[in-house]
Amino acid sequence: MKLTILFGGASFEHEISIVSAITLKEKLHGFDLSFIFCDQDHTFYLIEPSKMKAITFSKSEHKKMPQLSLSNGAFVQKSMFSSTHHKGTVLNLIHGADGEDGTIASLLDFFSIDYIGPRVSASVFSYDKRYTKWLCEAKAIKSVDYQIISSNDVKNITIPYPLIVKPATLGSSIGVSIVKDESEIDYALDVAFEYDKHVLIEPFIENVKEYNLAGFMANGEIIYSIVEEPQKDEFLDFEKKYMDFSRSEQVLKADISEELETKLKTNFAKVYKNMFEGSLIRCDFFVVNDEVLLNEINPIPGSMANYLFEDFTGGIEALASSLPHAKKAKVNYDYIHSISSAKGK
Amino acid sequence: MKLTILFGGASFEHEISIVSAITLKEKLHGFDLSFIFCDQDHTFYLIEPSKMKAITFSKSEHKKMPQLSLSNGAFVQKSMFSSTHHKGTVLNLIHGADGEDGTIASLLDFFSIDYIGPRVSASVFSYDKRYTKWLCEAKAIKSVDYQIISSNDVKNITIPYPLIVKPATLGSSIGVSIVKDESEIDYALDVAFEYDKHVLIEPFIENVKEYNLAGFMANGEIIYSIVEEPQKDEFLDFEKKYMDFSRSEQVLKADISEELETKLKTNFAKVYKNMFEGSLIRCDFFVVNDEVLLNEINPIPGSMANYLFEDFTGGIEALASSLPHAKKAKVNYDYIHSISSAKGK
Repeated sequence: MKLTILFGGASFEHEISIVSAITLKEKLHGFDLSFIFCDQDHTFYLIEPSKMKAITFSKSEHKKMPQLSLSNGAFVQKSMFSSTHHKGTVLNLIHGADGEDGTIASLLDFFSIDYIGPRVSASVFSYDKRYTKWLCEAKAIKSVDYQIISSNDVKNITIPYPLIVKPATLGSSIGVSIVKDESEIDYALDVAFEYDKHVLIEPFIENVKEYNLAGFMANGEIIYSIVEEPQKDEFLDFEKKYMDFSRSEQVLKADISEELETKLKTNFAKVYKNMFEGSLIRCDFFVVNDEVLLNEINPIPGSMANYLFEDFTGGIEALASSLPHAKKAKVNYDYIHSISSAKGK
Repeated sequence: MKLTILFGGASFEHEISIVSAITLKEKLHGFDLSFIFCDQDHTFYLIEPSKMKAITFSKSEHKKMPQLSLSNGAFVQKSMFSSTHHKGTVLNLIHGADGEDGTIASLLDFFSIDYIGPRVSASVFSYDKRYTKWLCEAKAIKSVDYQIISSNDVKNITIPYPLIVKPATLGSSIGVSIVKDESEIDYALDVAFEYDKHVLIEPFIENVKEYNLAGFMANGEIIYSIVEEPQKDEFLDFEKKYMDFSRSEQVLKADISEELETKLKTNFAKVYKNMFEGSLIRCDFFVVNDEVLLNEINPIPGSMANYLFEDFTGGIEALASSLPHAKKAKVNYDYIHSISSAKGK
């Protein structure tokens, strides 16, 4: 199967996207893979598969490779007298800004290129943690209590300590702090506001049980991964998370009751349906007093959460053949014609 | 002031976008205007201002004009040996799909082109009426009671008759029906499902008082238009609405109490702030038993609601100089460097 991995992006998660792409190259070795890199200036490059190494990008070697531009139905490589069209399904693997905020989704939609990845609305509701809370409220999905603070607000915190401070729109724990008491709050807010004008504050629940579940819709049904109980440090800092994005070994299933597994899947389905079709997402849940709470939606999880699936390659193939297509309006100028002819009377 | 009007789009509202653009050409005659047309195949054309007539497009005359493509910071016109860069602020005047669903916003953001118009999140929350309801719930803005029906649902209507049926994502009354009793519901749903997989059902409130208010943020403050009490037929059908998009004469202020005007403005501000910055929007409100209810958000109102502003040109200038800019992440490959050097030890 032909598949183009699109990675990079002008994002704080640019580097982990590179790591993700290198990992997928190994995991999808049966595929006919191409690699398109989006650099921080939003130029696209076609990367020679044998050059899919971190050093290619950190040493700017990619700048010697062919540039691509977007056109209807394809990425195009232009030379003086001809142009090559790179068609086929794209896997959007740009983590964070560009990839997860709806930008890349819109570009690929506009140029009628099929892709695996969240659509525009799905991106908006998962990229900005404020809107994830709105989604939870609208779909009656339980989540952790929260408060939003904006950079020009009076900082009147109502969530009790210890609490966790997160920029509204970043992933991979960037700008996140755990705050034990009031003496640490100003610094934590300063850090978070470096990254975003809006900040989410949630109670920090010590020793909370955490479970990750990934899945995607194919042929009208959700295919679930196994449930993982992630290894816990207090929380993953960026460097550990970076390593985490290169995971490729299948993990063990969490030792949980069938009842809890069903609850997690029910919550996943509530999040996914009528929103995330076309994408493989990972939901991170907390379990508090037997209640399942949604912590986060990862609409493009690190290395596509390959390590959670028993048949990852089969899953990607099934998903690629179940992609949603937007209905396009036909324009026929009926009204302009009828008005022009009425005027002519 | 230089300003580029971007209009057209692959949308059911393609034709009204053309009418809107022609109207703005007259209203903004003091500006240095350019016109870029997006046709239904997503090709961009630079339109000679003297050719800004409906017939240019209905007769496909635009196809003889220069094609443009997007590149960093500009629309580019390429000829055999040179290329002209059309820089400067764009006014996104594509109504409906493409313009209001976040696609054009993403394209212009990606290519770092300044624009007047809703950003991606603002587009998602106003284009899909389901998400407008979520926004209302999250921001404690009152709106009309509603029910969502999806095309594969059992159609168990709980809203009492008479009711109004609307496709979730279209503007300009396309696919909308007023349903007096059960005998008419199936047909109305069939019509609405022609346009969208999801349909909104609301009670139809006879003789409801309706008020429109437009506004935008400039220099940190919202500039409001006058409040209009729109002329009412049962509701505007597409052809009447089409004519409505070419409005250019300033209307009279609705005869309402200062108290009601303040209430409308307070509700407008709740909708606008932290969401619609960069755009001029029109909110359509109902007033029922002295209570203000949000009916609809128009993030790109017909001919920019010029007829509601005393100083429309001054407003557009002020808005153009207060556009938000996304913070761009800098990529420095710190982690890749540190990991490579750790490996080298």
